[in-house]
Amino acid sequence: MQKRNATVAVIGAGDFIGGEIAKKFASEGFTVFAGRRNGAKLEPLVKEIEKAGGEIHARSLDARKEEEIISFLGDADKHAPLEVCIFNIGANVNFPILETTERVFRKVWEMACYSGFLAGREAARLMLPRGKGNIFFTGATASLRGGSGYAAFASAKFGLRAVAQAAARELGPKNIHVAHLIIDSGVDTEWVRQRRIEALGPTALDDPDALMPPSSVAESYWLLYQQPKSAWTFELEIRPFGEKW
Amino acid sequence: MQKRNATVAVIGAGDFIGGEIAKKFASEGFTVFAGRRNGAKLEPLVKEIEKAGGEIHARSLDARKEEEIISFLGDADKHAPLEVCIFNIGANVNFPILETTERVFRKVWEMACYSGFLAGREAARLMLPRGKGNIFFTGATASLRGGSGYAAFASAKFGLRAVAQAAARELGPKNIHVAHLIIDSGVDTEWVRQRRIEALGPTALDDPDALMPPSSVAESYWLLYQQPKSAWTFELEIRPFGEKW
Amino acid sequence: MQKRNATVAVIGAGDFIGGEIAKKFASEGFTVFAGRRNGAKLEPLVKEIEKAGGEIHARSLDARKEEEIISFLGDADKHAPLEVCIFNIGANVNFPILETTERVFRKVWEMACYSGFLAGREAARLMLPRGKGNIFFTGATASLRGGSGYAAFASAKFGLRAVAQAAARELGPKNIHVAHLIIDSGVDTEWVRQRRIEALGPTALDDPDALMPPSSVAESYWLLYQQPKSAWTFELEIRPFGEKW
Amino acid sequence: MQKRNATVAVIGAGDFIGGEIAKKFASEGFTVFAGRRNGAKLEPLVKEIEKAGGEIHARSLDARKEEEIISFLGDADKHAPLEVCIFNIGANVNFPILETTERVFRKVWEMACYSGFLAGREAARLMLPRGKGNIFFTGATASLRGGSGYAAFASAKFGLRAVAQAAARELGPKNIHVAHLIIDSGVDTEWVRQRRIEALGPTALDDPDALMPPSSVAESYWLLYQQPKSAWTFELEIRPFGEKW
Repeated sequence: MQKRNATVAVIGAGDFIGGEIAKKFASEGFTVFAGRRNGAKLEPLVKEIEKAGGEIHARSLDARKEEEIISFLGDADKHAPLEVCIFNIGANVNFPILETTERVFRKVWEMACYSGFLAGREAARLMLPRGKGNIFFTGATASLRGGSGYAAFASAKFGLRAVAQAAARELGPKNIHVAHLIIDSGVDTEWVRQRRIEALGPTALDDPDALMPPSSVAESYWLLYQQPKSAWTFELEIRPFGEKW
Repeated sequence: MQKRNATVAVIGAGDFIGGEIAKKFASEGFTVFAGRRNGAKLEPLVKEIEKAGGEIHARSLDARKEEEIISFLGDADKHAPLEVCIFNIGANVNFPILETTERVFRKVWEMACYSGFLAGREAARLMLPRGKGNIFFTGATASLRGGSGYAAFASAKFGLRAVAQAAARELGPKNIHVAHLIIDSGVDTEWVRQRRIEALGPTALDDPDALMPPSSVAESYWLLYQQPKSAWTFELEIRPFGEKW
Repeated sequence: MQKRNATVAVIGAGDFIGGEIAKKFASEGFTVFAGRRNGAKLEPLVKEIEKAGGEIHARSLDARKEEEIISFLGDADKHAPLEVCIFNIGANVNFPILETTERVFRKVWEMACYSGFLAGREAARLMLPRGKGNIFFTGATASLRGGSGYAAFASAKFGLRAVAQAAARELGPKNIHVAHLIIDSGVDTEWVRQRRIEALGPTALDDPDALMPPSSVAESYWLLYQQPKSAWTFELEIRPFGEKW
Repeated sequence: MQKRNATVAVIGAGDFIGGEIAKKFASEGFTVFAGRRNGAKLEPLVKEIEKAGGEIHARSLDARKEEEIISFLGDADKHAPLEVCIFNIGANVNFPILETTERVFRKVWEMACYSGFLAGREAARLMLPRGKGNIFFTGATASLRGGSGYAAFASAKFGLRAVAQAAARELGPKNIHVAHLIIDSGVDTEWVRQRRIEALGPTALDDPDALMPPSSVAESYWLLYQQPKSAWTFELEIRPFGEKW
């Protein structure tokens, strides 16, 4: 692995998608700044990346706090130029509308939309003076469709998509690649596997490609990163081959 | 005018669109409950509607406060069954992303999205036991497109659209008509007229149909209200004949 | 009924939607020019409309033939100014892609897309010199979604929608209202009723509002016709209250 | 270059996009079957690819003729398994609707939509027995938007997109990757360069990344080809960084 003089910030570095993104970019020579609510949970990821010869800085991060985002991204950028910022916080909940409390609606928005705005804005602030950078956001089926029971989640995801669009239109001509990756399927986590077995029976997992592996999400981000500026994608949708859509 | 045993709640009863909606429904025999931030500003509307023989109750309403929404809609429903709830609060702002403060982003969302969620949910709570009702939301071009400079406004409008979609899919089969009216143009207000003259010169207003009259928005809501449940529209887009789109 | 000096042309005046459109506009005082492949089948419609005091001219029309469209619309316009042209030919087929023959693909396109282009263009030619008119197209779920098995049908419906969009953008500023009505559900015909009973059992038809009545489509067209030019809708989606979408 | 036992069929192998696709896949070891109206014009491409050590078979092909498509793809598949089929025929024209002749409308459809259907269907027929393959279609801004003057072109491109969607939904679960690449910008050809200079002045071409290089389109197809089946993209949009959208 050849070391780059560049950092990638992963906001929402959970055990699945976020962790795989961190590993992918670390393996390509980026210094990773990984943030999640409870930074202590990043320890296994740190060990894995360091064992493979990569560099990662793990942080506790409440992405809803402006000052924490500023400090997290600022630290990354001081270490080496912030070249990629990936916002990957989800907050998938489903409630009938009458049972969607004010508190849930607000919290889901703060986690999945407002934090993304803060991250995108602060990443742009660091990247614009250098005239380059990449700001990526993780989307979902609910970014495009407000299904029954998804008032809170879809509202936040629609809102995040609007932030990404506005940022892409403003920052693209300034050589900042803003992209929105729509994962239009379940992602392969322990929790999703259990639900599939319950719903579809014990053969539900026989096809290894039926669920989206978190590593495929990481590869899709890598693909977006590699696009030349003459052919950028703003919105990239991905789904497993057998997904109904 | 024949009086109906029914109320319409207009949340965001401003001088233009909201006022026209109130007048239209009052003229059709509805009792109007009109709410806006400063209820005192509703006085001219009250006079006009009462002079025409209609009934209107004007209230100061901060729609971002759950308890105020509950009380406003509850009062309307106690007066006579709440048959229509129209959420019409806008918050159109445009800032470069670096100048979009945390405060602006949050406030625009609270006004244009979160308030709409509260209004929709509480209207549904009152309507569901009767098995009928209409919940309408005012959208804009920014409901579908996150243009440069519109991170805050488009994010809120996208989010409101998701609330409306989720509510429509859940409540439609329960005979609640949820609709989202997209006004894809400037609306004819004093402020918009001035901006057009500045941008296009003194002939900009020669065609009386070039701007959307607020009364046309009101008529569009009336049209949605009249649809039979065998042919409901969820999303209705309207624009003046000469609008570029 | 007050007679108008105006004609409506209904292209694809079948027993259900087209017939209801004809009756609606006839009842509003329009002279109807109704065309369908086999004009003899229009006899019951003619009787019904004339019995109600309306005026209708029934014609055999192969809408895929440019000269027939020109002559059909020209005759209507000679009778009285052509004020509304409604293109309502469907061609719903579903085949696996390998079984979609060249002949089917071409024929569905000729019926559902190419004919619509000819009708729209020739209606525009007659309306533009008068500086007013209405050109409406019937769309379907397949206008927006290419589902499995719908390569032929969705391709034609997508194509028709593009014609309508291009025409709306060009002709709107010239005061021609072009609209595309998306019927996002099954329409209540004998054939659809049978299929529902087979699929859902004998109670499938208990709710009289579960299927879209053809008359609701006609009412939706009437609504589009009545819109003031300050607030036109290009695309109107309609579905019964209980429809999944 | 390592030779693969696989062919790629490029239908619409013009001097720009199609040629670059051929070169890219040839350089990756594919045997290329390249078809265009006048096969003789492929001679420079053949020389270039063969000089670089690649293998290409050039053919005259009228893609609107079912039997020619069958024979072209059949020959490719006999040579080595047809692994990728790329349909790349454009037919960009712009006419006011009244000047869009029946002949133009039909011809544009035959070239840009009907041919694509035939190519997709016949590629699927060859690929399905092997349970793998890739069928890609070139789209444009007009695949999503029917702009004024684009009745013919947008109608064909919308129609092609529907074919691609229907095929993707049917064939995806059978391990055929169907994708639709939307080029949302002008592509860098001599003709487009001239138009830009006329429109924007002599500095219009100073930024080498302002126009989409044909090679970037080829790279985007390569990227689609490389996606694992656990994370396929159906619709990929690409545009240069400075493009307005």
